[in-house]
Amino acid sequence: MKQLKIVQIGLGPLGRKIPGYIAQRQGMELVGAVDVNPALQGQDVGELCGLSPMNIKISASLEECLKAAKPDAAILTTVSTMEKVTPQIEEIVGCGLPVVSTCEELIYPWDTSPERSAQIDEAAKKANVAVLGTGVNPGFLMDALPVFLSSVCQQVERIRVSRFQNAAFRRVPFQKKIGAGLNLEEFESLKQSGTLRHVGLTESVQLIANAMGWKLTKTEDIITPVIAEKEIKTDAMTIPKGFAAGVQQIGKGWMGEGEKITLHFKAAVGEPEPYDRVEIEGEPNISSTIKDGVNGDVATCAIVLNALKQITEATPGLRTMADIPITAFFR
Amino acid sequence: MKQLKIVQIGLGPLGRKIPGYIAQRQGMELVGAVDVNPALQGQDVGELCGLSPMNIKISASLEECLKAAKPDAAILTTVSTMEKVTPQIEEIVGCGLPVVSTCEELIYPWDTSPERSAQIDEAAKKANVAVLGTGVNPGFLMDALPVFLSSVCQQVERIRVSRFQNAAFRRVPFQKKIGAGLNLEEFESLKQSGTLRHVGLTESVQLIANAMGWKLTKTEDIITPVIAEKEIKTDAMTIPKGFAAGVQQIGKGWMGEGEKITLHFKAAVGEPEPYDRVEIEGEPNISSTIKDGVNGDVATCAIVLNALKQITEATPGLRTMADIPITAFFR
Repeated sequence: MKQLKIVQIGLGPLGRKIPGYIAQRQGMELVGAVDVNPALQGQDVGELCGLSPMNIKISASLEECLKAAKPDAAILTTVSTMEKVTPQIEEIVGCGLPVVSTCEELIYPWDTSPERSAQIDEAAKKANVAVLGTGVNPGFLMDALPVFLSSVCQQVERIRVSRFQNAAFRRVPFQKKIGAGLNLEEFESLKQSGTLRHVGLTESVQLIANAMGWKLTKTEDIITPVIAEKEIKTDAMTIPKGFAAGVQQIGKGWMGEGEKITLHFKAAVGEPEPYDRVEIEGEPNISSTIKDGVNGDVATCAIVLNALKQITEATPGLRTMADIPITAFFR
Repeated sequence: MKQLKIVQIGLGPLGRKIPGYIAQRQGMELVGAVDVNPALQGQDVGELCGLSPMNIKISASLEECLKAAKPDAAILTTVSTMEKVTPQIEEIVGCGLPVVSTCEELIYPWDTSPERSAQIDEAAKKANVAVLGTGVNPGFLMDALPVFLSSVCQQVERIRVSRFQNAAFRRVPFQKKIGAGLNLEEFESLKQSGTLRHVGLTESVQLIANAMGWKLTKTEDIITPVIAEKEIKTDAMTIPKGFAAGVQQIGKGWMGEGEKITLHFKAAVGEPEPYDRVEIEGEPNISSTIKDGVNGDVATCAIVLNALKQITEATPGLRTMADIPITAFFR
C-alpha cells in the first residue's frame, strides 16, 4: 500500500495530538506542519508535540511548507465556523490538496452556509480534490452512524440520538468548562459567554435530514443546565443540590408539527449511565447503544486519519460523511 | 427526485416480499418481474405477492421482460452461491442494468471465488454498471457495521460480532429448521444434510479482514448445537435437557496464532438475551449493542431497496458494502 503523505495545518491542542497518532500508523506519514502563530514557526513539530524530533519545521504558511514537502492530503484543525474555514480551505485546495477538517460547521454546511458551501465545492471541483468535515461528534456518533443504521429500515418515522457523558472522571478544567458546580445564575452567564455551546449540533440534524430526504421546516438548538438532584461530591468540588452538575444541549429537526430528529448531548458530573445511543422509530425499530460511550479525544483524531484514504479517492467537491464510501480503520 | 424503475428477478419466498415493500416507497417503482419457474410465468406479480393486481406479468426471462419495461436497476433474489449467481449477473449486466443481489456469497467473494469475482467485475465494468451483494446478514450486521464502527479507532486489535436470536417467538418451521428439539445424533445428521448452515459467514470474515488490511492465514466456519441446559417448554414442543435448542455457527479469521475476527451467530429456543453486538478491541475499545437484535425478514428487503440508490450511482464493477457510499434509508 502506498503511504499517504500528510501535512498538518493548525497546531492547537487537537492538532498537536495528530502527529503522534500518524506516527503509529503504517499507511501514512507526516511530511509537513503549518501554523500561523509566529511563536511556533521554525520549531520541530515532533518536539512541540512531545515526541522525538521529526526533522519537520513548522512553516508559517502552506505555500512555504510546499517548497520542501510534497503531501498527498491536508489535515486542517484550526477553526469551528464556516466563515473562518472557507478561505483556509480555498487556499489548501488551490494548492491541489484534498482536505479533512475537524471544523464542526463543515460536517454538513449546505443548509446553514449555502453560499460558502458552494464556494468550497466549486474550488474543490476546479482543483479536482475532495473536502470533508468530520470528527467523532459532530461527524460520526450523532449523524453518520444513525444514517448508516437506517440502512436496515423499510420505514423511518423519527430518529433520536443520545450522547450522555459522565464528567466525574474528566479533568477539573473540563468539569468547570461544562459549568459543573455553578449556581443557575452563574451557569446562565457562562452560557451567555458562548463557551458552553457544542458547535455543529444543527449541522448534525441537517446531515440526517438530508440523508432521509426530510425537508425540515424548523431546527432548534437548546442549551440548559443539568441540575444536581442531590449533593454531588468529587475530589475537586462539591456540587450542592439544585446547582449545575453540567450542561445539556438538544438539537431538534421539525417537519411541521412533527419532531423528526432529536439529538441530546449531555455532559455532567455524576451522570449515572454514560452511553451513545441511536433510536430509530420505524420498521423495524432500532435501539443501538455503545456502552460507556466513545472517548472523544482519541476518536476524533482517529476518524480524521481514517477518513484520509477515502477522501484522496472520493469524487471531487465538498463531501460529507454520508456521501463518501464508508470510513473504516486503516493501518 | 427521479423514481427508480426496478425489475425483480426471482420470486421465491424473499422475492415475493419485495414488490410490497417497493410499493410503500416514493422513490422507486416496480416495472418488471422475472422467474424461471413456468408455473409462475404470465401471472400478475401483485396477485402472486398477495397485493392488488399490478398489471405486471411475470416474464420467463429478463430479455422478454425488457421488451415491455425500461428498468434502471435489477434486484436479484435467486441463489446463494457464486457458482450459480455468476451467469445470472452476467446476463443482467449484459442488458446494461446495475444489480443488487441477496446472494450470500456475493457480499465479499474476492477471496473464496477470485475468478468468478473478476468475471463479474469485468462484465460490470464493460457494461458501465455496478453490482452489489447485500442483506442484513451477511451484508450489514456482522460485516459492514463493525467496519464502519472501526472508523473511530486509532488501533484495532480484534473484532468480535455476536448475533444471538431467541427462536421461541418464531414460527415452528423455523424452530425445526434450526434443529430445536432434536437429540444430538439427529442434530448431527441434520447438520450433515447442509440445511443448517448460514451461508456467507466466511465472506463476512473476509470483508472485515480486507477493510482492516489484515491478510488472514486461515478461516474457520464451525457449526454446533446449542444444548438445552434444562428442559424448555414452548407451545409447540418440549426440549429435554441435553437436547438441541438450536444452532450456533462461529466464523473465525486468523493471522498466524492470532484470532483477529470472531463472528458468532446463534439461533435457539429460549436464548435469554437476544441482541446484535459488535465488540472492537482497540483504542478506544467499542462495545455496541442493538437491543433485541434486528428482525432479519424486514431488514434484508429494506437494505436491498436502500442500496439501490447508491448502486445506480456507484463506480462500475463488483462492489461491496465497504466500498460504496454509506447506505441509508431512502423513501
